[in-house]
Amino acid sequence: MPHNIAILGASGYTGAELVRLIATHPTFQIKALSGDRKAGQPMSSVYPHLRHMDLPDLARIEDIDFAGIDLVFCALPHATSQAVIAELPERLKVVDLSADFRLRDPQAYAAWYGKAHGAPALQREAVYGLTEFYRDQIRSARLVAGTGCNAATGQFALRPLISAGAIDLDHIVMDLKAASSGAGRSLKEHLLASEMSENIKAYSVGGTHRHLGEFDQEFSAIAGREVRVQFTPHLIPATRGIVLSCYLQGDPGTAFDVMSQAYADEPFIKVLPMGEMPQMKDVRASNFCHIGVAGDRVAGRVTVIAALDNLTKGSSGQAIQNANLMLGEDETLGLMAAPVYP
Amino acid sequence: MPHNIAILGASGYTGAELVRLIATHPTFQIKALSGDRKAGQPMSSVYPHLRHMDLPDLARIEDIDFAGIDLVFCALPHATSQAVIAELPERLKVVDLSADFRLRDPQAYAAWYGKAHGAPALQREAVYGLTEFYRDQIRSARLVAGTGCNAATGQFALRPLISAGAIDLDHIVMDLKAASSGAGRSLKEHLLASEMSENIKAYSVGGTHRHLGEFDQEFSAIAGREVRVQFTPHLIPATRGIVLSCYLQGDPGTAFDVMSQAYADEPFIKVLPMGEMPQMKDVRASNFCHIGVAGDRVAGRVTVIAALDNLTKGSSGQAIQNANLMLGEDETLGLMAAPVYP
Amino acid sequence: MPHNIAILGASGYTGAELVRLIATHPTFQIKALSGDRKAGQPMSSVYPHLRHMDLPDLARIEDIDFAGIDLVFCALPHATSQAVIAELPERLKVVDLSADFRLRDPQAYAAWYGKAHGAPALQREAVYGLTEFYRDQIRSARLVAGTGCNAATGQFALRPLISAGAIDLDHIVMDLKAASSGAGRSLKEHLLASEMSENIKAYSVGGTHRHLGEFDQEFSAIAGREVRVQFTPHLIPATRGIVLSCYLQGDPGTAFDVMSQAYADEPFIKVLPMGEMPQMKDVRASNFCHIGVAGDRVAGRVTVIAALDNLTKGSSGQAIQNANLMLGEDETLGLMAAPVYP
Amino acid sequence: MPHNIAILGASGYTGAELVRLIATHPTFQIKALSGDRKAGQPMSSVYPHLRHMDLPDLARIEDIDFAGIDLVFCALPHATSQAVIAELPERLKVVDLSADFRLRDPQAYAAWYGKAHGAPALQREAVYGLTEFYRDQIRSARLVAGTGCNAATGQFALRPLISAGAIDLDHIVMDLKAASSGAGRSLKEHLLASEMSENIKAYSVGGTHRHLGEFDQEFSAIAGREVRVQFTPHLIPATRGIVLSCYLQGDPGTAFDVMSQAYADEPFIKVLPMGEMPQMKDVRASNFCHIGVAGDRVAGRVTVIAALDNLTKGSSGQAIQNANLMLGEDETLGLMAAPVYP
Repeated sequence: MPHNIAILGASGYTGAELVRLIATHPTFQIKALSGDRKAGQPMSSVYPHLRHMDLPDLARIEDIDFAGIDLVFCALPHATSQAVIAELPERLKVVDLSADFRLRDPQAYAAWYGKAHGAPALQREAVYGLTEFYRDQIRSARLVAGTGCNAATGQFALRPLISAGAIDLDHIVMDLKAASSGAGRSLKEHLLASEMSENIKAYSVGGTHRHLGEFDQEFSAIAGREVRVQFTPHLIPATRGIVLSCYLQGDPGTAFDVMSQAYADEPFIKVLPMGEMPQMKDVRASNFCHIGVAGDRVAGRVTVIAALDNLTKGSSGQAIQNANLMLGEDETLGLMAAPVYP
Repeated sequence: MPHNIAILGASGYTGAELVRLIATHPTFQIKALSGDRKAGQPMSSVYPHLRHMDLPDLARIEDIDFAGIDLVFCALPHATSQAVIAELPERLKVVDLSADFRLRDPQAYAAWYGKAHGAPALQREAVYGLTEFYRDQIRSARLVAGTGCNAATGQFALRPLISAGAIDLDHIVMDLKAASSGAGRSLKEHLLASEMSENIKAYSVGGTHRHLGEFDQEFSAIAGREVRVQFTPHLIPATRGIVLSCYLQGDPGTAFDVMSQAYADEPFIKVLPMGEMPQMKDVRASNFCHIGVAGDRVAGRVTVIAALDNLTKGSSGQAIQNANLMLGEDETLGLMAAPVYP
Repeated sequence: MPHNIAILGASGYTGAELVRLIATHPTFQIKALSGDRKAGQPMSSVYPHLRHMDLPDLARIEDIDFAGIDLVFCALPHATSQAVIAELPERLKVVDLSADFRLRDPQAYAAWYGKAHGAPALQREAVYGLTEFYRDQIRSARLVAGTGCNAATGQFALRPLISAGAIDLDHIVMDLKAASSGAGRSLKEHLLASEMSENIKAYSVGGTHRHLGEFDQEFSAIAGREVRVQFTPHLIPATRGIVLSCYLQGDPGTAFDVMSQAYADEPFIKVLPMGEMPQMKDVRASNFCHIGVAGDRVAGRVTVIAALDNLTKGSSGQAIQNANLMLGEDETLGLMAAPVYP
Repeated sequence: MPHNIAILGASGYTGAELVRLIATHPTFQIKALSGDRKAGQPMSSVYPHLRHMDLPDLARIEDIDFAGIDLVFCALPHATSQAVIAELPERLKVVDLSADFRLRDPQAYAAWYGKAHGAPALQREAVYGLTEFYRDQIRSARLVAGTGCNAATGQFALRPLISAGAIDLDHIVMDLKAASSGAGRSLKEHLLASEMSENIKAYSVGGTHRHLGEFDQEFSAIAGREVRVQFTPHLIPATRGIVLSCYLQGDPGTAFDVMSQAYADEPFIKVLPMGEMPQMKDVRASNFCHIGVAGDRVAGRVTVIAALDNLTKGSSGQAIQNANLMLGEDETLGLMAAPVYP
């Protein structure tokens, strides 16, 4: 059965990625695209790579007729999203890709995002969109909050280990390498090719990255106590992808067993053989996440490394995975394209 | 109806690209993969990005049972290919991705490849695999010769103009920029990341590139006279893609009209609005080819620029497009995935 | 003898490159740096790679005391430059890196830059800064106009051939590949790393690039007739460097001899052995220009390829080379650093 | 006073980097270059970027006359180096860039490199070449062992903190990002541009990287107890540079003070203002090392990040710095070139 889809904020990278993935989705049909600053333009002038598709022109949100729409992907900037979603018809299913509904605690939201939430009722209703761990709630949700791309990576790497009590919760170090598309199509000096080429730089140093709010919320919930990881992201000279290296204290064999069992039946999460490590390029432009586990010459140390594509599994692919569930489709529908290599 | 497929030479980039594309092809099923030097290994150890697929292990060609196979993709090195294909069961349909059957004239083959052809009867039988121009012969062919990736790009850019007599045949300049995957997964010093990063270098200078044999053959045939283009390829710091800039003498308006009409109904060839130019990234990992036409401040000059992905439209995507025709499927089946951007 | 130097517009890439080169120049001392929007900031906050140097803070131009200054490098934007230079003390030597004084003909300037020149007297006085061909005039000049980086590359490739009458002036095709730093540190969408990575795109198609004004002026002057080349630049995924491929009609042996003799005594222009081609990376971060000449399988065709670093030999290195001459120093002083490879 | 220099193993990247740096060194003169497999070739055919230099051809080591040589840089592969150095005239000063003389303990050497040392007397004599910490011994040494590039980075980041007792020795995590040139000009599949582009991969996971031998030796010596860091290097898509992120337990303010004081007078080590972090590109092609220190939202955690160029400060620049000392020159001679940015 076809489902009619609208994408709000289609002129950003996650919006374009949604369109790319839906291009070959068998039951989703794009009926409306919004892009306020580019309203009136054909999508192919903003993203010429979509030139072959028959797409509606970019419109202003207020000009979209939501009557026949079944589900809305909201790829708008943080803060804008909550205001827009609050105004949408209540019957509409919504997958939000912004940060607006990721944190359940109003105080945590205010602390990380610098102001009170503008739609607290929706915040209470929203289901956290990490599909593999919130599958049942997502199936019946009206509003699903897409996770941060870094937050998704870190949770795939650590949730089973924390749940199983397999690692020391007080010594979790996470070093993340993120490609540039995670910062969006925004005009910032440090995102210029001349600046990023041949470069690596840490950012949000000292526990200041907003995705830490998600780690705090999720890890503490499953641990039953406060967990505060030590986390630094780095911007690297690549377009798509995240590689996260976690330095942990625990038994490597146990860790590997826990991870293997946790993801044994997951279609998109692949645990590599013990000691093998994933590489960023092996999941590019796909909805897969690869995870490796290794021991160390010093007993009691474990390294877990996870890789995914921030725009796909970390954002728009996850969103479609959730939308599939919300619309009664098979979770993997339209998402089984193999990674692009080399 | 499902078709059983074998891929010979699956450990190279074009082999891996065939597997990637077939992963979501609705009627092709991979039944055998060969990779002589890596025989016995699972495909996922050679290409971990295919880890999620249920694939046969790499085998030696002589160990493959071709009984139930409908079509073979032959992604073996040049010269090897002709020997292997000559030994395959005659009833098998074959799409060859090597250079072995691209040239129809035995003398031209010998001149460009340095020795006499080893399977001259097959050479006579083979159909040149530039789908858009050999569609009818391909539909009924048993053996189709995939074109060179550079040769495909150049022909998409120029065939309609030559056919229409719209350009001066004696002043055709073609400057090509090719990404590294066109050179395969081969251990050559100039292909190292340390050498290629931040680099550009011309190669096969002076009319010595083998794909010129295809230009000579095809352009002369449609012109009805000898055509010898001036052509230099350059290796650029990117993984996938070809951009070809053609400097021509002719009327720009006529050239644009000719191109637009020639490709009006083609699903994969997109002529951009007059004066707009394609970029390499807009066709990445897809079967599309974008072409731009522009005039010049000096009357009588035309610039035509074409872009495609060497591994997809330039090689493995083209091969599947041809296989679709040979097996009675719709030509676009499994090939409509949108380009990956950014 | 030490020379006191001021750099106006030090916050751009050519400004930073001037500082980098002067860091090890034995007789130049930086006494003032301007950067209007960043006035008051230390240079190390704008360019942390210069942190080890003892540099004056960025100042507004009007706050600079030019009393003790011997020479000013003016790395300001086009149009701004002419206004600023007109106000500088007349005794000051000036090397301008903008486009403002490159064209001698006021009408040509107006045609290419869209408005009348604001300092026509200075325009008449300015000497064109292509050192190897204007050495004597530069030595005694007060105001030297740095060339366009693309224009420099093209002239190194073609001037000797045009002077010698060795090529057909009506069939000159120039295909140029330019790295991103040539576009400066400007916030434009197409210069983002996410857009440029794995990409190539032609720009200023159809004879519209402003550096054509320099080709017109210079080539026509030495040919004694109007010369209009067919020229397309392409933006490539690299930070520094230009590779220019010229497709010419003429005798290859003659062309090679002409080029070899023309540059035999030049310290920075290196003609490679016949048939060898330069690569972009071989001149990176240096003041050298490498040039290759090759014939073709078709008699009467020549390919000439030139490579240089747009920020060094194409801009700031050239500027220092000229400043050396203007200040009575050896032309090569401070400029003999070897290219950075790999 | 001029010093006559020989470089053994000049055809590798560290050899080429030595030549590049010596090109503008005021008192070093290159008298001999060896490159066994390329003996007889001019250096410019192996490294065309050095074309402008007047260099001796590559020779076999046994054909080099060491009579007039003052100092030898030995850039040969590990294991080869010890055999060659043992045969050199005893009066020759030697800076070795291999791993052969980095470890003082014969058992540690055997454990990390898989066999007994072939020149144990030399091993005892060799001085560890981390200039900033072994300056006095280097000045009078005959044989100096260049450090590992990763090992140098880690020691710049941690030695002062360990010496001062400012961090918990049992919880040191080091996540390193290394560019491809660190792996040399070697033909390995994972070093191909097609494989490395848009990729990141951990290697030597689990405490197996040989540079750990240097960390063990040096950190334990200054701590007065066994120190075993948790360390994972990652290969990143860049050519030159190392960025090392250290996750530590200690007081951030103390850590910053310790680092600032330790390096206050060092010409090449620059500690950034508290909370600022270095980027790889800011030290490219230079002998500088930038270090940043930051606290965390959780008290008692410190992040220290260090960046240097593996080929310069991590290898050939360090070697020249040591040679300067050994030959009685100022330590910084020929090494003050500013980093190349962008």
